[in-house]
Amino acid sequence: MVAYSPRLARLIESLRRLPGVGPKSAQRMALHLLDRDREGASFVARSIDEALEHVGRCPSCRMFCEGGNCLYCSPSRAESGQLCVVETPADLLAIESSTPYRGRYFVLMGKLSPIDGIGPEELGLSLLAQRMGGDRVSEVIIATNPTVEGEATAYYVAEMARAAGLKVTRIAHGVPMGGELEYVDGSTLAHAFSGRQTLGA
Amino acid sequence: MVAYSPRLARLIESLRRLPGVGPKSAQRMALHLLDRDREGASFVARSIDEALEHVGRCPSCRMFCEGGNCLYCSPSRAESGQLCVVETPADLLAIESSTPYRGRYFVLMGKLSPIDGIGPEELGLSLLAQRMGGDRVSEVIIATNPTVEGEATAYYVAEMARAAGLKVTRIAHGVPMGGELEYVDGSTLAHAFSGRQTLGA
Ligand SMILES: [Zn+2]
Ligand SMILES: [Zn+2]
Repeated sequence: MVAYSPRLARLIESLRRLPGVGPKSAQRMALHLLDRDREGASFVARSIDEALEHVGRCPSCRMFCEGGNCLYCSPSRAESGQLCVVETPADLLAIESSTPYRGRYFVLMGKLSPIDGIGPEELGLSLLAQRMGGDRVSEVIIATNPTVEGEATAYYVAEMARAAGLKVTRIAHGVPMGGELEYVDGSTLAHAFSGRQTLGA
Repeated sequence: MVAYSPRLARLIESLRRLPGVGPKSAQRMALHLLDRDREGASFVARSIDEALEHVGRCPSCRMFCEGGNCLYCSPSRAESGQLCVVETPADLLAIESSTPYRGRYFVLMGKLSPIDGIGPEELGLSLLAQRMGGDRVSEVIIATNPTVEGEATAYYVAEMARAAGLKVTRIAHGVPMGGELEYVDGSTLAHAFSGRQTLGA
């Protein structure tokens, strides 16, 4: 074991809390910050503190937001009447960055998983039901992940939307664009096959 | 472009100051900290602040140290009379973690590079000369990297050590242990070949 001075050791240990950072990278980051970018180090610390203090949850869509001013609940986004349901903030950002969709969202912050004690309450589904009922929503777009739990969640949300008399759609799953059938995993291919669509004449 | 709320945007931007962190990882880290590990986020910010405030340079070996108490300049390390010269703190830590060497060090914090304005003064070579002269040093072990600049630095330091009447050694370079000749780059192989050593009878 290498002997580090105590605060350097603690800095390395703390950087390992970042996802994808192992002991080697944490050491490299710590040395880089102390040795070559103390200003950057200070910037990181300040930005974390600021974010922890000011970034909360939007009470309507559950995405991160600041000062009650939610980027994803602006009035212009209500025009289409569409509401897209996603599992996580990262999923919301992925849709924003790759699709032209600029409607509203609801972030579940998870998926149904009885084993982990995650049920409708934890996912804020009563709030989602309220929004379906009273928020001028006409279409619910379900964009949960195509995993067992994501599918179960999609099924549950779809039932809720149907009960509220809304149109329900699910984003398509199948062979990725540019993917080759030969290399796609079997369950994706089976899904793509059974979900085939009629082509126009 | 995805719209982030301002402090989330700044957090992502700040995390990109960490080495090896691109936009995708920075976003993943920021969401992880805000969503799943706010305590860890706080730990990172505190550890950075603490390290910036308390981790300085040892006036003798130039390694990071805290409160004037250098781990690498302890009296027991002086016994061998050896002084190992390295380019960076990371190099020092690599030697500590992989070799049994527990003598003293001198960290250049760089290498001679006239183009970048890095000369003997920037590398603290006058301090190194003092240590060679008066610090009960008998052997200078040069462990700069086998790059053009590292070799130039090694040459310069070796001349200083010889002028001080000290034994000078250079760590060996050649085919890595477990490496195969076929896959080693040409300059390493040429170096290993010309640096071949006589085997005992
Ligand atoms: Zn919102
Ligand atoms: Zn020292």
